[in-house]
Amino acid sequence: MRTTTGWQSLEQNSNALARVTIERRDLRPDDIAVRIDYCGVCHSDLHRIHGMLGEKDLVPGHEATGVVVATGQAITGFVVGERVAIGTIIDSCGQCAMCEAGQENYCYNRPTTTYGGTDRIDGTPTKGAYSREYVLREKFAFRLPDGLDPAAAAPLMCAGVSVWEPLRAAGVGPSSHVAVAGLGGLGHIAVKLASALGAEVTVLSRSTAKEQDALSLGATGLLVTTDEAQVAAARGRFDFILDTVSADHELTPLIGMLGLDGTLCVLGNPLMAGPKLWELGAGRKKITSSGTGGLRQTTEMLEFCATHGITADVEILPSNKIETALNRLANGDVRYRFVLDMSDLDT
Amino acid sequence: MRTTTGWQSLEQNSNALARVTIERRDLRPDDIAVRIDYCGVCHSDLHRIHGMLGEKDLVPGHEATGVVVATGQAITGFVVGERVAIGTIIDSCGQCAMCEAGQENYCYNRPTTTYGGTDRIDGTPTKGAYSREYVLREKFAFRLPDGLDPAAAAPLMCAGVSVWEPLRAAGVGPSSHVAVAGLGGLGHIAVKLASALGAEVTVLSRSTAKEQDALSLGATGLLVTTDEAQVAAARGRFDFILDTVSADHELTPLIGMLGLDGTLCVLGNPLMAGPKLWELGAGRKKITSSGTGGLRQTTEMLEFCATHGITADVEILPSNKIETALNRLANGDVRYRFVLDMSDLDT
Repeated sequence: MRTTTGWQSLEQNSNALARVTIERRDLRPDDIAVRIDYCGVCHSDLHRIHGMLGEKDLVPGHEATGVVVATGQAITGFVVGERVAIGTIIDSCGQCAMCEAGQENYCYNRPTTTYGGTDRIDGTPTKGAYSREYVLREKFAFRLPDGLDPAAAAPLMCAGVSVWEPLRAAGVGPSSHVAVAGLGGLGHIAVKLASALGAEVTVLSRSTAKEQDALSLGATGLLVTTDEAQVAAARGRFDFILDTVSADHELTPLIGMLGLDGTLCVLGNPLMAGPKLWELGAGRKKITSSGTGGLRQTTEMLEFCATHGITADVEILPSNKIETALNRLANGDVRYRFVLDMSDLDT
Repeated sequence: MRTTTGWQSLEQNSNALARVTIERRDLRPDDIAVRIDYCGVCHSDLHRIHGMLGEKDLVPGHEATGVVVATGQAITGFVVGERVAIGTIIDSCGQCAMCEAGQENYCYNRPTTTYGGTDRIDGTPTKGAYSREYVLREKFAFRLPDGLDPAAAAPLMCAGVSVWEPLRAAGVGPSSHVAVAGLGGLGHIAVKLASALGAEVTVLSRSTAKEQDALSLGATGLLVTTDEAQVAAARGRFDFILDTVSADHELTPLIGMLGLDGTLCVLGNPLMAGPKLWELGAGRKKITSSGTGGLRQTTEMLEFCATHGITADVEILPSNKIETALNRLANGDVRYRFVLDMSDLDT
């Protein structure tokens, strides 16, 4: 058994995590061990620490980058010292239609999540990347492309691919008119990716506070959703709206801004009920959601980001500041993603 | 003023309509007058007679075929004696993005409906095609292609185009796996159209009662939605499900049968609330609805039906049997569309 150090939740409703010793399995033939250097602080970490799924004693973290420190006997794709990225899932059945389609995130037999899941072989609970070392199957580790800063790239592994897949599924490209509702961890990467895909991107926000940021990220403008005149004037303007707002909110104004056959993808708050279906009928509008990413598209996303120089805008904190990060995240006080530097766990 | 005869609702909740004299406007330069020979009995006629939109004294009917009997001074596209079809809308603003896209059914300034609407020029209420004559702008009349039986073609003008547009929007073609939920007025035409488009079509129904019909219409099979094992076995099978069921029903089993990026189009009961959005997330599934058809696609649909010999399966009744037709329609006792023969109004 290998041991490492990490951060574990103590009780629900507390953002104070405890530094604990974590056991990692001895390497199986197809495993690699990764020294985690950076891990993004995802909004879902906050939700799950607070008991959204009824879990206890969680070691969160599923947006990680690091370096290979050991390889199993059968490993041919990685060598020690190589840069690696780890995302939200670390295994799947490999045999269902979703796995065959490269969408292991939708595995019919449940993907194994990076934390809070159950290892498919030994049945132990998976513990996440708020830790100094992680062990996983080679197949679910990604080579971190040259040129991507490892701290700023970490959030690509959940926030990034979570917006990449729906943008790609919607066929977003040079002729697209895209809106991104909510400029946070997901939204700010979505603006960068959609712009780099060639789309005209508008940020939808409740105020003008983030207008300069929106423009800097690549948007052509910011539309204030609390201004009814602006919303009315934008009737039918967008082919695709990516809704990353995590608070409860009305979908009707967003649907009204969709054009013919337009799609609203709700990522930020999928626990909301959908609209009455007749709201979609006038213009054959579609509503959808999406859940993280599969191996194929995660690889594509990383390559696209390397080509276009895209990473997250991050604020780096030593991992022992995790409580501060979670408190500030809960208050929306981050532009735009906290990333934990795990090197303080060595001391 | 021209006068004709037709059938008007007397009171809400009654399927007994009164034979009344109806005034039609003198022809404007771009008007044609049409002798209505046949008119389909649409489920929405029943809803609206029963006060769904709070209307009174309705002359329903928006699935009509007939013959041109008079033309306005500026008419060049039709001559007296030509066969004509009339659908659900008879005018629109002509200037908004939807009209410019050929989707006058979604006109931002409200399309003028064939009945229960308001004429854009003289402000009079529009009265429908449960009558012997109809007057409308040439632009909104369709040439009925040769070879289409005028009685059996009438339901194409609402039921037909209402399923045609979403099938086309979803890109249904030879590689598609399509399911049609509910085999009624809309559903049976959807099976014919989707099959003719080359798709593999499965009918979803609560029992096997319509299995032979489903196969005769072009489906490759019928799946019983009350059989949990059949539903489970069909997980992820369909690219596109067209839901024409008018009763309240669960959408979750239908969503489960959608594959990756699949679309559920709810036509039969758009007043239902949509599902929780997370149900759509696992597989990036989309939910949508649709509302009748625009000029461009109605024309395409009629041409496609002429090429493929597609009309509705109809039961023809003299128009004075409208109460019988509505009563039986309310009980689901029709395979698959009533069409009123209006010639009895001459006597």
